[in-house]
Amino acid sequence: METLRPLRLDRLAGHLGREVDGDGGFEIEGVAALEEAGPKDLSFVRSARYANRLALSRAGAVIAPSGVSVGLRSAIRSDDPTLDFCRAVSWLLPPRAATPGIHSSAVVAGGAQVDPSASIGPGCTIGSGARIGARSLLHAGVSVYSGVTVGSDCVIHSRTVIGEGVVLGDRVVLHPGVVLGADGFGYVGDGAGGLAKVPQLGGVVIEDDVEIGAGSTVDRGSLGDTRIGRGTKVDNLVQIGHNCSIGEQVIIVAQVGLAGSTTVENGAVLLGQAGAVGHLTIGAGAVVGPQAGVHKDVPPGVRVMGSPHRENRRFRRMMGALTHLPELLQRVRALERRAAASTPPVEGGEH
Amino acid sequence: METLRPLRLDRLAGHLGREVDGDGGFEIEGVAALEEAGPKDLSFVRSARYANRLALSRAGAVIAPSGVSVGLRSAIRSDDPTLDFCRAVSWLLPPRAATPGIHSSAVVAGGAQVDPSASIGPGCTIGSGARIGARSLLHAGVSVYSGVTVGSDCVIHSRTVIGEGVVLGDRVVLHPGVVLGADGFGYVGDGAGGLAKVPQLGGVVIEDDVEIGAGSTVDRGSLGDTRIGRGTKVDNLVQIGHNCSIGEQVIIVAQVGLAGSTTVENGAVLLGQAGAVGHLTIGAGAVVGPQAGVHKDVPPGVRVMGSPHRENRRFRRMMGALTHLPELLQRVRALERRAAASTPPVEGGEH
Amino acid sequence: METLRPLRLDRLAGHLGREVDGDGGFEIEGVAALEEAGPKDLSFVRSARYANRLALSRAGAVIAPSGVSVGLRSAIRSDDPTLDFCRAVSWLLPPRAATPGIHSSAVVAGGAQVDPSASIGPGCTIGSGARIGARSLLHAGVSVYSGVTVGSDCVIHSRTVIGEGVVLGDRVVLHPGVVLGADGFGYVGDGAGGLAKVPQLGGVVIEDDVEIGAGSTVDRGSLGDTRIGRGTKVDNLVQIGHNCSIGEQVIIVAQVGLAGSTTVENGAVLLGQAGAVGHLTIGAGAVVGPQAGVHKDVPPGVRVMGSPHRENRRFRRMMGALTHLPELLQRVRALERRAAASTPPVEGGEH
Repeated sequence: METLRPLRLDRLAGHLGREVDGDGGFEIEGVAALEEAGPKDLSFVRSARYANRLALSRAGAVIAPSGVSVGLRSAIRSDDPTLDFCRAVSWLLPPRAATPGIHSSAVVAGGAQVDPSASIGPGCTIGSGARIGARSLLHAGVSVYSGVTVGSDCVIHSRTVIGEGVVLGDRVVLHPGVVLGADGFGYVGDGAGGLAKVPQLGGVVIEDDVEIGAGSTVDRGSLGDTRIGRGTKVDNLVQIGHNCSIGEQVIIVAQVGLAGSTTVENGAVLLGQAGAVGHLTIGAGAVVGPQAGVHKDVPPGVRVMGSPHRENRRFRRMMGALTHLPELLQRVRALERRAAASTPPVEGGEH
Repeated sequence: METLRPLRLDRLAGHLGREVDGDGGFEIEGVAALEEAGPKDLSFVRSARYANRLALSRAGAVIAPSGVSVGLRSAIRSDDPTLDFCRAVSWLLPPRAATPGIHSSAVVAGGAQVDPSASIGPGCTIGSGARIGARSLLHAGVSVYSGVTVGSDCVIHSRTVIGEGVVLGDRVVLHPGVVLGADGFGYVGDGAGGLAKVPQLGGVVIEDDVEIGAGSTVDRGSLGDTRIGRGTKVDNLVQIGHNCSIGEQVIIVAQVGLAGSTTVENGAVLLGQAGAVGHLTIGAGAVVGPQAGVHKDVPPGVRVMGSPHRENRRFRRMMGALTHLPELLQRVRALERRAAASTPPVEGGEH
Repeated sequence: METLRPLRLDRLAGHLGREVDGDGGFEIEGVAALEEAGPKDLSFVRSARYANRLALSRAGAVIAPSGVSVGLRSAIRSDDPTLDFCRAVSWLLPPRAATPGIHSSAVVAGGAQVDPSASIGPGCTIGSGARIGARSLLHAGVSVYSGVTVGSDCVIHSRTVIGEGVVLGDRVVLHPGVVLGADGFGYVGDGAGGLAKVPQLGGVVIEDDVEIGAGSTVDRGSLGDTRIGRGTKVDNLVQIGHNCSIGEQVIIVAQVGLAGSTTVENGAVLLGQAGAVGHLTIGAGAVVGPQAGVHKDVPPGVRVMGSPHRENRRFRRMMGALTHLPELLQRVRALERRAAASTPPVEGGEH
């Protein structure tokens, strides 16, 4: 599917630190999934469960676990074929280096500092005092407000907006339409039937190697900052409220919503459309199920589901029992009838 | 509400293949809902249930079912007034033809092909190798990445981003802020406590007559494509993950989220805020209720609700029973007390 | 955290109509949360519950309720410290007046009227017939379609899209990526297996002092308008369908979705990720819980939770009972065994 300059299989194996099984001289011309690969493509097999798909595939070479038969194909044998395929692709298809420079249609305010190796696309706007680091790439139409810091080797896709005072580390990837640093959502009654806005003066700090999906929003802190820790990955259309503190290597799947001042510790996983009401902590390594509604702290390592959330096993037992509830109602009715029938009328009043 | 060049009612009726009841010479000057229509406007009545609203309306003419009294108004009689009103409006108010040409502030890369009849608005950016078909209209600030194909007669609204290699058919409508072709969300452990990105190299294929609502996101495939079939309609803020395969004439309401590799077959309907966990199939003509959580295949034609989802009738019975649960607890307690009272103490140990 | 030109505490107290406790000559140089404030900063204490945090704070001055000990600090005593802090900040840090004028890279169509005191940022596009009021600020890349009206003193952030015929009142704030006036979502069967689009010809009316969060979408009416009343606040990634009518001072938290023709009366509160199926009314002052699914009218002042929604107390009782359900199943089984054991076999057939 993706074509590349041919590369010998044995050279790739050497790069991965793995052994070749078959013809090391096979020239890789593309990478593809098993179903779509052709005789010049490299593909991969996760485990023996995919043996049937492999048998039907036209792939010329595969990365496969040692136990799995690859027929006449050339193979790289690997303990972790998925990871090695990821590594192979990032080596075979390195991200294109952007052409350094500022497009003539971009508008860079006085006092902004753009590294000469950075690439600023058409229609980008860079506010006063902003700094763009080495080799960072801003696609067309990115809006950078005043005082923003973008680190090195970042990739900022089209139509992203980076609000006042946001700080990005290095190698941060923002997909199209992301909004960082908009005002948080806070109001108090103004004593006259109206609403007064709570000041939203804080910043957003995004650490190194964070990736944020299309259309997601991360609000600036009210006082103090909203933070996303190193290596955390955020999917599309996620809302992260003001003063949230997200740890490192956290996974946040699409359409999750975190109300203000939620703390998510390192390595936690939040599945799609889950929500948290704010001012609580989701512990390290915890897993929050899809559509779960987190209403109080989740201890480290615990898996929860449901809205309101419960520990997984408890939730599953409840849902299993719920399945039997309509019939349980009938069974209780039967017991009541039986009890009524077996009770001598004169004793009825005593109960 | 919308004014137009006057048109005689009988001419419209002829176009719709319907009969006029009353004055065919009535000149239609606008279209509006019953509540807002004036004496020169055309409105419509769905069914006899709206007779009261019609009686109060100032509309000069209506499209109405044959049974319904329209008073002194002129009417077009129709078996399907809603559809005929839709057809009437699209005939009376045809989409404005855009002025062909490329705005001077747009940036079109070398090697991009823009049909001379297409209209490219201010601030649009068109990447290298992209192709824009006949009469397609790109509103201000659309970002088209390299290698994109846009068919004929498409309408792409402001600030939409179309990522690398996305292919649009003909008559596709994208509302503002749509993002097509951002990276899918996939990571694997890198064996060193970090996360390695799974390659996201595939494309997005949007077939003819698809419409996608404001702010929705459709990710590119990992390997292979994400597809949306002919005539499918997607509402606002919907997330469609990588390698999803959406059939034809599917309806996907706002804020639905589909995790990667979800298959949705022709004619299925997904109501607002529903989600699916991915790697499953929602069958042809199935209906997924609002906020439902689809966790395994939904057979064709089946209607499901709830999170986790259940077949509608089962879900309703469960919810009905749940209403009685607090009181059921008390009834069981009463049965237990009665049983305890009726059991001779000496036999207690035997049970 | 935010620095400002120094101001004496007693002058601020006078402005707030409050008394100083301690050194009125204290010069305020910044505002910050208790945890982050330094000796030249003003902070605030909500209530006696924050006394410990205050004791540990380095804040030089605070706004505090009269009962709370502030140590050696200067204080402004207040019945409502949060509100007074909000008022203090908006007085100390007034929104920057934008530089009037139209940036040279903006594209303003013939027939558009831009007040000379308005500020139109780089890359903005203003359609024909649009009007931009006094002192309104459009950040970079805002797209204003034809016939739009923007009132006075509005702040429209980057990459927002304001569709055809939308009308904004005064002091409206739109955060980045908002989309107003995209087509509503309505289709009818076309009698030939396809879908015909229901006309989307109405407008959007946003009254004074409304604030809408990043990435939220408000669709234009089908026939008639979608309305958001004075002073209402909408958080990020909210979807408001066509012909919704939202009252005044309503609070709508992130990721809420309202299907078409939902009415929300004054002062109602909709918490995060809640949804409503449309064509229903959420009464004045009602509170809809997070992730709730509103499927029929909610009376004024009533609080609801759950999907499908129920009145709060009822929902809590149901959820409490649900917790006991697995064990209830066992208890009923025990009762059945006991009943079976106590029933003479010959009578079994009679029941």
